[in-house]
Amino acid sequence: MNVKIYDTTLRDGNQAIGIGLSLRDKLEVAQKLDSLGVHYIEGGWPNPTNEIDTRFYPEVAKLNLKAKISAFGSTKRPGTAIEEDPFITDIVNSSASVATIFGKSWDLHVTDVIRCSLEENLSMIHESVRFLKARKDEVIYDAEHFFDGYLNNPDYAISSLLAAQEAGADCIVLCDTNGGLLPGDFRRIFLDVKNRITTPLGLHLHNDTGCAEANSIYGVELGAVHVQGTINGLGERCGNANLCTIIPALQLKLGIPLISEMQMASLTETAIYVADIANTSFNIRAPYVGEAAFSHKAGAHVDGVRKVRRAFEHIHPEEVGNKRNFVISDQAGSGTILEKLKDIRPDLDKKDPIVQNLLGRIKQMESDGYHFETADGSFQLIVHEELGDFAKPFTIKGFRVIEEKIGDNPPTSEATIKVIDGDHEVHTAAEGDGPVDALSNALYKAVGSIYPVMKDVTLEDFKVRVLEGSQGTAAKVRVLIESSDGFERWGTIGVSTNIIEASWIALLDSIKYKLLKEKMKEKNGL
Amino acid sequence: MNVKIYDTTLRDGNQAIGIGLSLRDKLEVAQKLDSLGVHYIEGGWPNPTNEIDTRFYPEVAKLNLKAKISAFGSTKRPGTAIEEDPFITDIVNSSASVATIFGKSWDLHVTDVIRCSLEENLSMIHESVRFLKARKDEVIYDAEHFFDGYLNNPDYAISSLLAAQEAGADCIVLCDTNGGLLPGDFRRIFLDVKNRITTPLGLHLHNDTGCAEANSIYGVELGAVHVQGTINGLGERCGNANLCTIIPALQLKLGIPLISEMQMASLTETAIYVADIANTSFNIRAPYVGEAAFSHKAGAHVDGVRKVRRAFEHIHPEEVGNKRNFVISDQAGSGTILEKLKDIRPDLDKKDPIVQNLLGRIKQMESDGYHFETADGSFQLIVHEELGDFAKPFTIKGFRVIEEKIGDNPPTSEATIKVIDGDHEVHTAAEGDGPVDALSNALYKAVGSIYPVMKDVTLEDFKVRVLEGSQGTAAKVRVLIESSDGFERWGTIGVSTNIIEASWIALLDSIKYKLLKEKMKEKNGL
Repeated sequence: MNVKIYDTTLRDGNQAIGIGLSLRDKLEVAQKLDSLGVHYIEGGWPNPTNEIDTRFYPEVAKLNLKAKISAFGSTKRPGTAIEEDPFITDIVNSSASVATIFGKSWDLHVTDVIRCSLEENLSMIHESVRFLKARKDEVIYDAEHFFDGYLNNPDYAISSLLAAQEAGADCIVLCDTNGGLLPGDFRRIFLDVKNRITTPLGLHLHNDTGCAEANSIYGVELGAVHVQGTINGLGERCGNANLCTIIPALQLKLGIPLISEMQMASLTETAIYVADIANTSFNIRAPYVGEAAFSHKAGAHVDGVRKVRRAFEHIHPEEVGNKRNFVISDQAGSGTILEKLKDIRPDLDKKDPIVQNLLGRIKQMESDGYHFETADGSFQLIVHEELGDFAKPFTIKGFRVIEEKIGDNPPTSEATIKVIDGDHEVHTAAEGDGPVDALSNALYKAVGSIYPVMKDVTLEDFKVRVLEGSQGTAAKVRVLIESSDGFERWGTIGVSTNIIEASWIALLDSIKYKLLKEKMKEKNGL
Repeated sequence: MNVKIYDTTLRDGNQAIGIGLSLRDKLEVAQKLDSLGVHYIEGGWPNPTNEIDTRFYPEVAKLNLKAKISAFGSTKRPGTAIEEDPFITDIVNSSASVATIFGKSWDLHVTDVIRCSLEENLSMIHESVRFLKARKDEVIYDAEHFFDGYLNNPDYAISSLLAAQEAGADCIVLCDTNGGLLPGDFRRIFLDVKNRITTPLGLHLHNDTGCAEANSIYGVELGAVHVQGTINGLGERCGNANLCTIIPALQLKLGIPLISEMQMASLTETAIYVADIANTSFNIRAPYVGEAAFSHKAGAHVDGVRKVRRAFEHIHPEEVGNKRNFVISDQAGSGTILEKLKDIRPDLDKKDPIVQNLLGRIKQMESDGYHFETADGSFQLIVHEELGDFAKPFTIKGFRVIEEKIGDNPPTSEATIKVIDGDHEVHTAAEGDGPVDALSNALYKAVGSIYPVMKDVTLEDFKVRVLEGSQGTAAKVRVLIESSDGFERWGTIGVSTNIIEASWIALLDSIKYKLLKEKMKEKNGL
């Protein structure tokens, strides 16, 4: 079966709340999508009011990507001559080899939104597809609101598809634009369309019922050969169908070849990369690519996974570039720690004094309130310290943070810090949005002047949790920090009754982990 | 059709990475679930190593909830006498009226994980169900790894269900424990089971392929009458089937009655409440309950929604207690606020300028990141301030907090504060475990010298969350504080990019709320 993946992260994904990709962002994401191996990249809707999307096409052409580049737009408008309709000419004038246009399938939209006759809409579809087909390599027809249209008036919805088919569309894409489709309706409607339309069928589903991925995957099982979606399911409202969920299901679980094994192994990295560029929070529970996707917490479970991997995992995490994670928690025994150690020093056995010390230290920290579940960076640091292959890279002489509020003005935060590197002292000061931010700024200023590689590191998330059984603001707090260098994300942790100290410990660990990674890369000659 | 919702947030949801609910959290969530109207609440796995889950059952019994309470556990172990098997007796001894036990359906798990014969496993299932059925109102049988088991050995998997059926199980639940199930397999397997098993069927699906909700919903269309899941899809790895997605699909879209209209309208609030208690980040793009679920960004779209609502929205957001959101002009709903206002001033109507001002102020605060779901103290203060019956009880001139760390010593925290009460000034200083604690101590010292009643107030909980879309330690944070005076607990909230300021706002609100309560008591002559 020859199935194609059509990415619309740059167009429909960019409609998500809080997202606005620049031209540079779009070009970078396009390269990343091309490396992943998607077959089509939809760049945007070129038109005079959208400068970024218009400039995208000549710029992306220079990159010589393997993926086909598609320009998005609409059918012509009612009552205009097609050669003069900018909806059509803007697509023709873009350098894209593929034109994707949407038209109306739902009679309610024809009569109440664009307000023309049902017949005129059919001829607009036919004429637009035929006109573009004569001028582009490929024309993809997006049947907007198709499923709602079918539910309202099946014959009219089908006749809109026939108009595109007769005009020579290369692919007809059934869209669930409002995202309200449930699996029962999906199956029934798709099978009817499959019986009546001979043009290859595609799907473009939104996620307002949480069924977009399931329906897309099932649609391919039922005969769809083209799937539209976005990285991380970015998109308006609840988002579009998530390609990071669909691609591995189709290829690894249903055996439909889409991209190479190496490309598949870059899926997790691609997902993190796009989340970073779009500055959206990354769902740790995302299927396949989330940090929690292959985490095992319960003790009995971990034992089971060690005994029979396939009894507890539906795919191998390495296939999608993710990793298995035996979560270090009070529910896990020393088995989990040993399992993690295997990746680092497979020669060590349970009785080795290094392993015994490590276990003792971890247990002590856990009873102090540490959790290493989402703080693998801190765990790795402890391991490498115990193994003696990573020493403290610098010394902190001290810091001071002053928080001051006068009257109704917002408070100000200032931090100073002294770091000793060999025999010279770095003394920095910084302000910030709050004491932790001021301290973090002063620390990065100081450490960044010693290690330039730190400039790639950003703090992605900062979580604070008050520990059970402790009282109010004197409570012990656990701070979890997530950092990224654009290639990897790592978590670090600090625990203290003082939130500044807990943050400080986690911040320092984040920096040390990055330096540890660099050291390991050097050691492995990368 | 009579379909039941079985919530396992407290048991399987609590397996999620980074989550560890306390007994108090569990009881509070149970009450919230009961108000939502779920039919079953699974509290945990009572056993001697799990003190919280064991204590949950006698405590929850005192609350007299409408929902049936279920105790979770496993079938008996191989080679033990059932009366002496703690796996069974712990369930019997709990006060729960419903027993839910899991057993093995996958031959691989029988032979390679629990390591007994296939026949012995069948009799363990049969014996355990029968034994519990004689001692509890209802026995629900969870067929663990059922779908994987079926794919490996369909006849054995079915025979494990028959063992439970013959023993009198009230419901047989097909579990996708590894979460790798795709819709095509799901449909085929479910229909086969439906043909061969007469006991009512349920579903317990995990989300490792992103299909758990779609398969659960479709399963009900195909004849399942019991759906297990968690609020917000919390759970191990990629989580469990999300009840916030399933309940509205079944009731609002497929017309299957589950809960009352009012309960359905509390769905969004419930989702936020559980996310706050579990201190997990809330997915703004979650179907139905996410902040973005009914947001309209594209200009044409917004126009369309205005013209024909049903052309662009698959349900009405109010039905699930959410609100439509035109991203340019915030259109926050006011139903809940008006509802709450009714308790305080039933005479006021919507058009009253006081109500209008109040709505405006709340809307503004919500768009700044405030949530009043768990901060009713702050909400009440705003209402009484707007009603003009509560004025600022004292004036804060300013504060200063100094945090200092020297070498490897723990940092010290000192706060000073000036409060004006009438015409005398109170100037206090205090140390603390961290800056917020020092500030809180100085504040209580100052305010306590003016209002002796403050000595009864303790801070019970302190939660901090970083808000969506903001960066690292410069992020906007939401601080939630819970206070108690031994008679009542109240929540207050502060939002700021500065954690000290956010904490400060919530601390001040906590004190002001206590003073408001005292004033109301006096007014009511108590």
